[in-house]
Amino acid sequence: MGLTIGVDIGGTKIAAGVVDEEGSILETSQVSTPQTPEGVVDAIADAVRIVSEGHEIEAVGIGAAGYVDDKRATVLFAPNINWRHEALKDKVEQRVGLPVVVENDANAAAWGEYRFGAGAGHDDVVCITLGTGLGGGIIIGGKLHRGRFGVAAEFGHIRVVPDGLLCGCGSQGCWEQYASGRALVRYAKQRAAATPENATVLLGLGDGTSEGIEGKHISDAARQGDPVAIDSFRELARWAGAGLADLASLFDPSAFIVGGGVSDEGDLVLEPIRKSFRRWLVGNQWRPHAQVLAAQLGGKAGLVGAADLARQG
Amino acid sequence: MGLTIGVDIGGTKIAAGVVDEEGSILETSQVSTPQTPEGVVDAIADAVRIVSEGHEIEAVGIGAAGYVDDKRATVLFAPNINWRHEALKDKVEQRVGLPVVVENDANAAAWGEYRFGAGAGHDDVVCITLGTGLGGGIIIGGKLHRGRFGVAAEFGHIRVVPDGLLCGCGSQGCWEQYASGRALVRYAKQRAAATPENATVLLGLGDGTSEGIEGKHISDAARQGDPVAIDSFRELARWAGAGLADLASLFDPSAFIVGGGVSDEGDLVLEPIRKSFRRWLVGNQWRPHAQVLAAQLGGKAGLVGAADLARQG
Amino acid sequence: MGLTIGVDIGGTKIAAGVVDEEGSILETSQVSTPQTPEGVVDAIADAVRIVSEGHEIEAVGIGAAGYVDDKRATVLFAPNINWRHEALKDKVEQRVGLPVVVENDANAAAWGEYRFGAGAGHDDVVCITLGTGLGGGIIIGGKLHRGRFGVAAEFGHIRVVPDGLLCGCGSQGCWEQYASGRALVRYAKQRAAATPENATVLLGLGDGTSEGIEGKHISDAARQGDPVAIDSFRELARWAGAGLADLASLFDPSAFIVGGGVSDEGDLVLEPIRKSFRRWLVGNQWRPHAQVLAAQLGGKAGLVGAADLARQG
Amino acid sequence: MGLTIGVDIGGTKIAAGVVDEEGSILETSQVSTPQTPEGVVDAIADAVRIVSEGHEIEAVGIGAAGYVDDKRATVLFAPNINWRHEALKDKVEQRVGLPVVVENDANAAAWGEYRFGAGAGHDDVVCITLGTGLGGGIIIGGKLHRGRFGVAAEFGHIRVVPDGLLCGCGSQGCWEQYASGRALVRYAKQRAAATPENATVLLGLGDGTSEGIEGKHISDAARQGDPVAIDSFRELARWAGAGLADLASLFDPSAFIVGGGVSDEGDLVLEPIRKSFRRWLVGNQWRPHAQVLAAQLGGKAGLVGAADLARQG
Repeated sequence: MGLTIGVDIGGTKIAAGVVDEEGSILETSQVSTPQTPEGVVDAIADAVRIVSEGHEIEAVGIGAAGYVDDKRATVLFAPNINWRHEALKDKVEQRVGLPVVVENDANAAAWGEYRFGAGAGHDDVVCITLGTGLGGGIIIGGKLHRGRFGVAAEFGHIRVVPDGLLCGCGSQGCWEQYASGRALVRYAKQRAAATPENATVLLGLGDGTSEGIEGKHISDAARQGDPVAIDSFRELARWAGAGLADLASLFDPSAFIVGGGVSDEGDLVLEPIRKSFRRWLVGNQWRPHAQVLAAQLGGKAGLVGAADLARQG
Repeated sequence: MGLTIGVDIGGTKIAAGVVDEEGSILETSQVSTPQTPEGVVDAIADAVRIVSEGHEIEAVGIGAAGYVDDKRATVLFAPNINWRHEALKDKVEQRVGLPVVVENDANAAAWGEYRFGAGAGHDDVVCITLGTGLGGGIIIGGKLHRGRFGVAAEFGHIRVVPDGLLCGCGSQGCWEQYASGRALVRYAKQRAAATPENATVLLGLGDGTSEGIEGKHISDAARQGDPVAIDSFRELARWAGAGLADLASLFDPSAFIVGGGVSDEGDLVLEPIRKSFRRWLVGNQWRPHAQVLAAQLGGKAGLVGAADLARQG
Repeated sequence: MGLTIGVDIGGTKIAAGVVDEEGSILETSQVSTPQTPEGVVDAIADAVRIVSEGHEIEAVGIGAAGYVDDKRATVLFAPNINWRHEALKDKVEQRVGLPVVVENDANAAAWGEYRFGAGAGHDDVVCITLGTGLGGGIIIGGKLHRGRFGVAAEFGHIRVVPDGLLCGCGSQGCWEQYASGRALVRYAKQRAAATPENATVLLGLGDGTSEGIEGKHISDAARQGDPVAIDSFRELARWAGAGLADLASLFDPSAFIVGGGVSDEGDLVLEPIRKSFRRWLVGNQWRPHAQVLAAQLGGKAGLVGAADLARQG
Repeated sequence: MGLTIGVDIGGTKIAAGVVDEEGSILETSQVSTPQTPEGVVDAIADAVRIVSEGHEIEAVGIGAAGYVDDKRATVLFAPNINWRHEALKDKVEQRVGLPVVVENDANAAAWGEYRFGAGAGHDDVVCITLGTGLGGGIIIGGKLHRGRFGVAAEFGHIRVVPDGLLCGCGSQGCWEQYASGRALVRYAKQRAAATPENATVLLGLGDGTSEGIEGKHISDAARQGDPVAIDSFRELARWAGAGLADLASLFDPSAFIVGGGVSDEGDLVLEPIRKSFRRWLVGNQWRPHAQVLAAQLGGKAGLVGAADLARQG
């Protein structure tokens, strides 16, 4: 008993899984993300039906990119799927006959890490997710901080450079333009183009051109000591750590959890982030320092978190 | 019954007052701030004794600039007074024989506004105080957000310009260097020096030189249409509003309250801040907008807030 | 006698003209720009032949976007046409049987303005061209400053914002991303999207959406008092003037000439640029100020300048 | 024959020397800089008289910090001495009975390096001087580029960070706040304060505190591998090299000469500057690169240069 389903709606795939009270996944299913809003509802309903078989399910939690309203029912705006004020909770409830909770996907992932991952022993946690972009979630006093209108913790779009890089959101200088997987690749491409003699390993892992550099090449090259790859991680960490220092000034959590694909590299990226965080932390000799921890659940955090949020009702 | 005392320790003056459950001040006293840590404790004890006469007091709340620990007992670091790990709660309790709560002064002021000022009807509020510097406080779900270590809401020191202006905190590009009374004066001085022909009113209110410009001249000149004074307020608002937009992305409150000396100018400064806030709010067409409200308690917010926090225990 | 031909190779059109010693154009011809390098050489040769008829021509001057070497013979790199180390001088000389001089198009335009336009009476002039991008040219002591390798005066790509907007050149924060016709349109779009109520005139001139805003709408709307349009010009001027102040610190010319499509708006854009220039000019009370003049030759400056450079040999 | 005197007016000392046509110094004298404008004229006259003894002198060249007019006669403004429109040429000529030429001190130093130092074989050279601040000079076609009003080449005050650090000149974000000896010390202090464990060597060379760090400690510590010291040089080089890349876009010289106290460290600072220059040089694969050379004359460049400028008349 006590089983719920978590659904993680990604840009390319929809994953669903049955999750127990310990955060263990008992069953999973995955399909490609349909192109239309209706198609997505169908796919969710199908996935829920498939993984439900043989389990007694109490509720469904859905994690979706975008703004979710304060009732955790309506997607106000989704960047990837054409949802505008989409009543997702109602639509899915009608289809699956179970209580549904909708949550921002980064919030769900933060909750998953808080409950079953790196957050153990902490009550005030800020999670950032360094994926293609930059997202995150906030736990205050053991509760997910959703904000008055449900749209808190949009870390990726705070402005860190006035008149800075254009962002897909229409603004400029957003943090995710400087601290994300996409930013890491840009750093490496720019440096490799300017000083190819310092990027021989990195360039050798791809097609030999700076334009052909991909994220995985940078990690591999950094491990082999490639100067451009190492410097690219350092640049990423410079921005990530400075931003965490700002979040410490605002939220003062006991721990930060760093997740997302970039964080899979472990200390290769975590260590420079910790250094940069300490470098920029205001008043750092007068105050206790938050820990900077690596996420533990990987790509499952969102699914597990959504399921657990549904359980909590 | 239900009376508490609030104490507000400023850089130049210490104010104490008896406050009732409605936030009304029944009695006040004020002395100059002594130069030594011991002198400050003496002055607090004296002030409490003086205003207590004839009242039955339950507790004392003290608002002080600096980092206050999570037990609300020890000042970890104070910028103005030479306090380093000062056990203020214990010392004052021994002297006045009442329960004492210590709180960061900007947190106390935020709480005062939330409880008895502009915060009426809101449960999730972010206050910023545009005084000489920039401070603030956060109320989430009707509770003061102090952070895990007690040092949350240090708004003034988030970095808004990489490699920007030096700040007294040792860092660079801190928000308070761009949005504060001191910043306003700098804007006016720089502009008046560069284009004195656009600052004839402003310069006429002081000694005729750009160096002689003071804060009150800028408000008066702006009211009289002085272009440099108006443009200085606009520059302040550009930075204040952009910062509020970032705080909305992070906290998503239902209201911002703008206090501090600069906010005494009312719509002269509030209106441009509102415009700038809206201009920079990410996703502003897809989400409800927080209100941007003027503080109502003026310089009494800290005293009233500290008293109320003491009442709540 | 004394006639030369100027050729202006644009991204969409190639214009040729016979120019006399006074800078007057006696004859012109214009064709679409071919897609291939060879096609462009053919088109130049054809254009020269056509306009030559009935005139005795001494030389041909060609203005082309890109880097031109110090011998004014080879295009090292052209952004629009696929020229890489293209020996343009030799190829065209073989075709037209006349001496040919190749020059960067913005240099040619600067020379044209210096000789026959706004530069009258000045020997030290810096021209900037606010077109789609930002280019320019430098005249020192009555001579075009080409630099040791021929690639001086690449104004558009000096860095004015560290970590700023991506530029087509691969770098970030280049001046032309902040001061150019393209930048002006971006300013207007961003502002109209954020505060459409301040852009009613501007939006009414296009399709009603911020995305539909074009350059010409902004000028028209600004003339009608549209706040967003006026503010967009002010933002452009903020960056243009600050950059001119830097150029004054470096070159100390007696005049700046501002050309390009944006400058066709005259004082609508020139006046705010002058103000911004004065605002940012270091030491402005201790030094003579360069004049900031509007260009006079419009789109003909490049053709006329190229012809005159060919005459000078 | 052919002897001239060069005078270098520094903030603390005035140096004079007899210089021959090869740039060799035959005689020198040095006094403390007087506090009053009149005192400085007296001191110059005395110094000229002393070093003249036994030599036949043709002319005197004076290098002074500040703006010097286009006639090389009047100091328009000097930052260190209280000169405002000081007719220095006339006053000194009356006292010494020799033709006098006044030049900006950084221009004089640039000329000295061009003629007798690192500039050999180059006709288009840009010199920057990384001393306490940042100055420089420009040689174009073998001639000193003074600008129309005599105040060109004020490199230190071009804006490299909008809304950046306050500068003594009243502006913000000036290059010399990021690339100068003073900046280097700031970098080291900030880093050592934040991460003292990475600055053990550096801190050990001074009084053990980050505040006690001096310029010479940083060089010594960097040579011993101290991470904070090395990183401080790298940060300096990041800004110096990016600025040189901008100057290459504008002036396109065949060589940069880097002088000033910071450059005494040789490749410790030159190599990272070269890397950073190449990193930021726009179009760096399509154009010849200017060399980045170390100055050769050290602190004598200004005196030698002023003397040679006087010889040239």
